[in-house]
Amino acid sequence: MDLTEHTLQKELIMDGKVIKVEKHRVTLPNQKEGIREVVKHPGAVAILAVKDGKILFVEQFRKALEHTLIEIPAGKVESGEERIKTAIRELEEETGYTSVRLSLLHEFYVSPGFCDEYISLYYTDTLVESDELKPDDDEFVKHHWLTLDEAIKWMKEGKIKDAKTMIALMHFQLEQNK
Amino acid sequence: MDLTEHTLQKELIMDGKVIKVEKHRVTLPNQKEGIREVVKHPGAVAILAVKDGKILFVEQFRKALEHTLIEIPAGKVESGEERIKTAIRELEEETGYTSVRLSLLHEFYVSPGFCDEYISLYYTDTLVESDELKPDDDEFVKHHWLTLDEAIKWMKEGKIKDAKTMIALMHFQLEQNK
Repeated sequence: MDLTEHTLQKELIMDGKVIKVEKHRVTLPNQKEGIREVVKHPGAVAILAVKDGKILFVEQFRKALEHTLIEIPAGKVESGEERIKTAIRELEEETGYTSVRLSLLHEFYVSPGFCDEYISLYYTDTLVESDELKPDDDEFVKHHWLTLDEAIKWMKEGKIKDAKTMIALMHFQLEQNK
Repeated sequence: MDLTEHTLQKELIMDGKVIKVEKHRVTLPNQKEGIREVVKHPGAVAILAVKDGKILFVEQFRKALEHTLIEIPAGKVESGEERIKTAIRELEEETGYTSVRLSLLHEFYVSPGFCDEYISLYYTDTLVESDELKPDDDEFVKHHWLTLDEAIKWMKEGKIKDAKTMIALMHFQLEQNK
């Protein structure tokens, strides 16, 4: 069975600062018509950053949730930007550290039911302090340093409940178990 | 520092079938104003379902990606529905199996930068065949059964690249290593 849904028509609902919202009228595999709501996202990177046996986390207010969330450093890819450069830039902006060596761990979609956001997850254990902390104009963050055991405890207690952060922590735990 | 962003005004951009899109004008912690694009999502469940040593996957076309994706069974919470009931319903609709016992493994946000989607991940190894496969009118799926080793291989090769599915597989792998 060919599962492809062919587009009959696209309507642009919002061309926003971060996301673009579209409605697609499609032909389904059974030849009937359907509507798909689609959010276009520029993509993002996240960084598992380790120094002296501790992992670096950022806590920031997330308006969609109306509360703060503890995550690993992350940020959106800018137009035309190479993802590893996004990773270095976001690390510096959000944490005041830079890194001379990052390695790619995993890449994944986070909400494929309606959104094309694709995250590249990097690892670094070569953090060096940068000249200055340069958050975006509208970005405010707190930092936390946790050992892997502490972070796993926070994950089990529900204090860490962000998918990309959990993938990073579970990956790290599996590596340590080898 | 209080990181809260206070809402000055909300504008409803789209009240869709699945998602609701809003623009929030907010006061930032530095007292300046900012705009946040927010997508409201009903929330979802996902199920790590194991039978005879194999894990059940579904492959379906994802319009936002314009290709198919291999994921564990999952689906959106309906209004007022208890999440464990969503899990049983979606399992039956997508796979033709039901389960007499599910346990909650993890709960997490998948895209907190703009969306409130919150996923509850369940585990079951008590699958029983249901009377019939009842997919939604606009849902078309293929099934795959993989051992954990095969699934981990597919993840490493990039054939499985869905965040909730990766969390389920890594959790299962960590459990097996105990």
